[in-house]
Order: sequence, then structure tokens, then C-alpha cells
Amino acid sequence: MRVGIRREPLPGERRVAATPETVTQLTALGLEVQVESGAGIASGHGDAAYTDAGATVVPHLNAGDLDVYCHVRPLAPESAATLRPGTVTVGLASPASEPATVSALAAAGVTAFALELVPRISRAQSMDALTSQSLVSGYRVVLEAAIRFPRFFPLYMTAAGTIPPARVLVLGAGVAGLQAIATAKRLGARVSAYDVRPASADEVTSMGGTFVNLDLDAVEGTGGYARELSEDRAVRQRDLLAPYVAAADVMITTAAIPGRAAPLLVTHDMVAAMRPGSVVIDLAAETGGNVEGVVAGRDTPVPTRAGDGTVTLVGMKDAPSTMPADASRLFAKNVANLLALMTRDGQVTPDFTDEVVAGACLTHDGTIRHEPTAAAISAAAAGTGEN
Amino acid sequence: MRVGIRREPLPGERRVAATPETVTQLTALGLEVQVESGAGIASGHGDAAYTDAGATVVPHLNAGDLDVYCHVRPLAPESAATLRPGTVTVGLASPASEPATVSALAAAGVTAFALELVPRISRAQSMDALTSQSLVSGYRVVLEAAIRFPRFFPLYMTAAGTIPPARVLVLGAGVAGLQAIATAKRLGARVSAYDVRPASADEVTSMGGTFVNLDLDAVEGTGGYARELSEDRAVRQRDLLAPYVAAADVMITTAAIPGRAAPLLVTHDMVAAMRPGSVVIDLAAETGGNVEGVVAGRDTPVPTRAGDGTVTLVGMKDAPSTMPADASRLFAKNVANLLALMTRDGQVTPDFTDEVVAGACLTHDGTIRHEPTAAAISAAAAGTGEN
Repeated sequence: MRVGIRREPLPGERRVAATPETVTQLTALGLEVQVESGAGIASGHGDAAYTDAGATVVPHLNAGDLDVYCHVRPLAPESAATLRPGTVTVGLASPASEPATVSALAAAGVTAFALELVPRISRAQSMDALTSQSLVSGYRVVLEAAIRFPRFFPLYMTAAGTIPPARVLVLGAGVAGLQAIATAKRLGARVSAYDVRPASADEVTSMGGTFVNLDLDAVEGTGGYARELSEDRAVRQRDLLAPYVAAADVMITTAAIPGRAAPLLVTHDMVAAMRPGSVVIDLAAETGGNVEGVVAGRDTPVPTRAGDGTVTLVGMKDAPSTMPADASRLFAKNVANLLALMTRDGQVTPDFTDEVVAGACLTHDGTIRHEPTAAAISAAAAGTGEN
Repeated sequence: MRVGIRREPLPGERRVAATPETVTQLTALGLEVQVESGAGIASGHGDAAYTDAGATVVPHLNAGDLDVYCHVRPLAPESAATLRPGTVTVGLASPASEPATVSALAAAGVTAFALELVPRISRAQSMDALTSQSLVSGYRVVLEAAIRFPRFFPLYMTAAGTIPPARVLVLGAGVAGLQAIATAKRLGARVSAYDVRPASADEVTSMGGTFVNLDLDAVEGTGGYARELSEDRAVRQRDLLAPYVAAADVMITTAAIPGRAAPLLVTHDMVAAMRPGSVVIDLAAETGGNVEGVVAGRDTPVPTRAGDGTVTLVGMKDAPSTMPADASRLFAKNVANLLALMTRDGQVTPDFTDEVVAGACLTHDGTIRHEPTAAAISAAAAGTGEN
């Protein structure tokens, strides 16, 4: 069977769905791999490296010739429509925000696997792209903060005096948040963190952070993700967080709710109460942001309330693509591992009795198999969509 | 006596020679402090903070009204000419590269102290601005490298495979180099380092780096700085370094010789032999660079010899000013400590029998007191200058 690896068309997307390393893995499964010329260049892999690994490099993939189509970003509806019935796709699909693509995949009879839907069970960890890419984002946000911060992160005791460590506050202690805590700690900062899920306190502590305990009821989501809060509780949470935000030199927000707009954790006033030179990085900027006024892909100077300077509010965009080599290395492994799970004797044959395969399947045989997505799309079609 | 703190006029210079903290220190010595409005804004100190600390903020300093003039960057010759005879100046003077300023200071009868000339003895460490600013630069270069590197610095063992740590090579193990080693190590990289002074091997090891031993004769400079090498030895050193450079993911060069152009340690071919995505940061770019082809203040993509991508060659510029708050904090302390050493009963009265005061003095009473500078300037005037 022939597997195609596309060159990602979206500007700013620098990852690729296969590396020379995973080409070797896929060919060892008995699959034939075609790579679109230049697909890996931003990740540090020239065409020759793919050829050496056993792939064929082609100027343009012909969707009609492929049995499996691997991608990073969700396909455009037009791309989905060019695929043959029965084609297997593997990549990110953002089903909640890309309903037109989901419908196009179903209409084309494509068997689409969305890496976002891979169940969070231990057997499927090696295919969990949300986790692998959040590792990249969580490391990266700390570098983005440190490079904009006019001071050191570590404590220094010098002949000209002692420099105190930077105080870093992380909001949201999922994979990215925990990685941000660990990286800021590595760099020598004093780190504290908050999450609506009290269960995350132990994880925060194990990464070297201090857990911020607000006097609020516990909230637990499913699959390790938080769920939405009531507006009352959100307001009270912001009030209780305000003094912690004001005391921070650097704040990193990472709170996301799958398929929903990011929760507003920090108001403009809370940012304005920080000291001049402070830095706020909002990793959720692309889904609306955790911080009021954030713009994805832009640094916004926020004047301090005291009038003595500005706080830099940074809206992260395409975070994993800022480190395309390692982001692709992990993403490509996630893709290859999911394909390996479905391949027998050189044939990709999804076994829907496997909970990982069934869970990750978005469309198959003309239907939308992921229930929440199917419900949202039919509700929208009936004119009763909640969004 | 009245001390003036200027607003630095050079674009890109964001530091300031006094902070509110050192204003308190200076006023406690019985000195009156005038701060030029906006002088501290880039370092996070508004005018009000200086006023609160006991300074007077003025729209423009009037050089004729000052007894002491504090600055960061070397004065322009025109600025030096406006000072009253007997005015004490404290700041960086770059005597080797700014002879016109030195002559102007002498001609104006200024008692100028150059922080570069502070002797490297333990009693004077608290006034050593080269060391304090190199601490900033050495930390900063690692962030500049990490933010451009398409991979992680630390080792990660993830469900999707193990990511090896970045290999960082530091050339030059002075204050900045050692700080770069420590910071890269903090971030999780595997660090090795080379210096022409074999005595630095222990320091490299104590920072967590591996010392690269080339089969070359030892070179020892004075005052902890390296001296120039013969061209033969420099060529042999480059040949022996080449395989270490090719194996590095990130290279940071920090080799400087006071008052001279930076030594060429790495040729274009050596950079081109690195892997695609590698990053080279040249901290000596402003004095000619350690790396062939480097341009201060610019990122230059260098195509790899294998044709599979580019290496990013970064010419650092104004490194301490990229972290103006802590750079100023340390610099201002250096300035205040030197002034404190010279102040008795509210009067700044340099005691030239003190080796720190005598060593740091560049001009006094119409003459150039720093012998090498005086010799260079009179040689140039006689048309026999070596540069």
C-alpha cells in the first residue's frame, strides 16, 4: 500500500508528518512511502535523506494514487474531496473547529483518523500527538518568556550584589504547563502554578513548582482535561488569582478546553497590576486566549496601572512549529505508531474492535464516527448549533 | 557634590548608570544626585522611582553644573569637551577604540575613570563592570541560541521515543563563556568548551562542561584574559577544532582580547560542515567576530556543505542591553562602589595611592594616565600607529 507524506501548505506550519526515521519504520511494515518534495526541509530533512531512508520523493502527491495520506494540520475541505473512497488519513483534524473538513472526509468515504481523538490510555501514549506537541509548546513558552524578560531567571550571588530569581507563575498544569514549570525551574526561576484540578498539585510539586491553593471548590474534567467553569466561579477564581499575578515577574497561561474557546483566566486589570518589564505568555491565544486582550502571533505592550512602564503580553502562535525538528520527530512517531497498530502484512486494515483505533476514527465508510462531532454537525445543519 | 546620571544617547543602549537602589547608596555618602528624565525607563525605573530614592530628576543635565558624571557607554568627544576641569567621570571608556574621547577628556582636564581598567583583584570585584556585564552576556547568548535552535536542549524520554540532548560547544572560557556553559547545562544540554588557557579546564569542569584538549602549546595571558596567538598556531588550532565544531548542534564563541580585534577561531568552511538547523552565536561580533563572515546585529544563514539546509550564524550586538534591568542593576552597583571608594565626607576625592583608583584612572589633570593608551595615542599622532 502506498503512503503519502504531504508538504504542509499552511504558512507558518513547519512540521512534517514523517521523518527519515519513520520512513524506515513504515517501509519495514511493508508500506511504500511517497514524500512530497521539500516536505521536511523546515524540519532539517532534505529530500535526499528521505530517499536514503527508502522513500520515493515526488514533486506533487497525487491523492488518487494513495492508500494512506499523512498530514500535520487539518486538511482543507477541497483536499479531503480529492481523496479516493477508502483512503486512510492520519493527522490532526480539529473536528470541533473544522466541521466542513469532517463533512468532506465523510462525503469522500475516507477513513480519517484524528490524532486529537487518540484515547488517553497508556497503550496509546506513543500515538498521542496532543501530548507530544504540548511538550514542545511547554518548553518553548519558557524560552519566549526568558528572551523578553529584562532580567535573569536564576539567582546570582555576585560581587556587585545578589540578584533574586525570577518569579514565574504558570496557570494550567496540563502537559504544556508541567513542561513549562520544569523548564522555568531548570533555568533557575522560582515557580508556582495553579490548576482548577486539585489532583494536579502533586504533579506541580514533582516538577519543582509550588501549587497555588485557592479557596474554591474542586473541578475535575475527563481524560486529564479541565472542563468549563460557571461564570460565577470564574469571576471568583480571577479575584483570588489577582494577587498571585501581581506578584509574578513572568506568567505563562496554558489553560485549554478541547473543542471550546479557552477560558478567560486573567483580565486586563490583572496584567496592568504587574511590575514594568513583566512578561505574560498566553499559549491559548489561538483559541481565544486565557488573557484579556491577547492577540495570537503578536506582542502587546500593556501599560502598568502605576504608569511606570509596560508589561509585555505575548500571544503564542504555532508554538510547536517554532521547534520543527523535534516537534516533527515526535509527531511523525505518533503517526507511524498509529499506522503500525493498524498494519498487518503490509496492509493498513483498521480493526475497529481495538479501542484506540475506534476512538481515533473520525470518519469511515461515509459516516462521522465520532459521536460529539456528528452531533455538533447535525445540530448546526438543523440550525440549532450552540456555537 | 553633585552627581549627574545621564540618559544614554546611543540607540540600542538600554542600560543606565544608576538605579533607585544606588541613588540611595550615593545620597547616603552625602552626594547630591541628578538624573536625566527617562534615563531608567528601559531598565524599568521611571522618574518617580528616582525621586522617591532621593534624586532630583531634570529634563537635561547641564554638564557645567556637575562634579561627577556617570555614564554607561563611552562619551562622545563633544560631550567630554563640555565638562568642567576637575569633573570626575565614571563609566565605560573603551580607551583602545575611542582615542578621540580620551584626548578630549584629557584636554578638558577631566578626571576620567574607565571601568574597563579596574584591576582584576579581589578588593575591586564589586566595581568590575566587564565581569558583571559578561555575566549578562554569557546567560543571554544561550537564550539566543535556544530560541533559534529547532530542537530541545534537554534530553527527553517520551512515549514517542527518546530525544537526545543538544550538544553545545563554547569557545572561550572567560566570564561570559563560563556563564554560557552553566546556562546551557542548566537547560539540559551536553556542553563542551575550549580555551587557549589550559588553566581554564578546571573552571569549565566546575560549570558542568567537558574541556576540549587540543594538542597545542599552552598560552597564558594577563589578568585572566588571553593574548593574541601567532598565525601558525591559530591555523593549527582551527584545524584541530574543526571536528568538534562539526559535531556541535550549537556553538557559542566568546573569545575577546582587550583592545584588539577578536581572534578568528572558526572559518566559513567549519560552519558549513555543521548539520542543518545548527546555531552559531558569536558574542565577539562587535569587535570583528570569532567566526568568519559574522555580522553584528544580524542572523546570517550559512548553507551547509552537504546542501541539506542552513546553519544560523548570529552576530550578537549590545548583549547586556538585551537584559537592561539586571545589567543596569549590576552596572550601577559597580559605578556606585567605585564612587564610594573615592568619597570621604561627601566629597569625591580620588586617592591615587590606592591601586584600584590609580589603575582605573584614564585621564587626570590634563594627562592620559593609562600608559598603554597614552602610548597608542602618541604613536598614532606621530603617524606610526600599528592599527
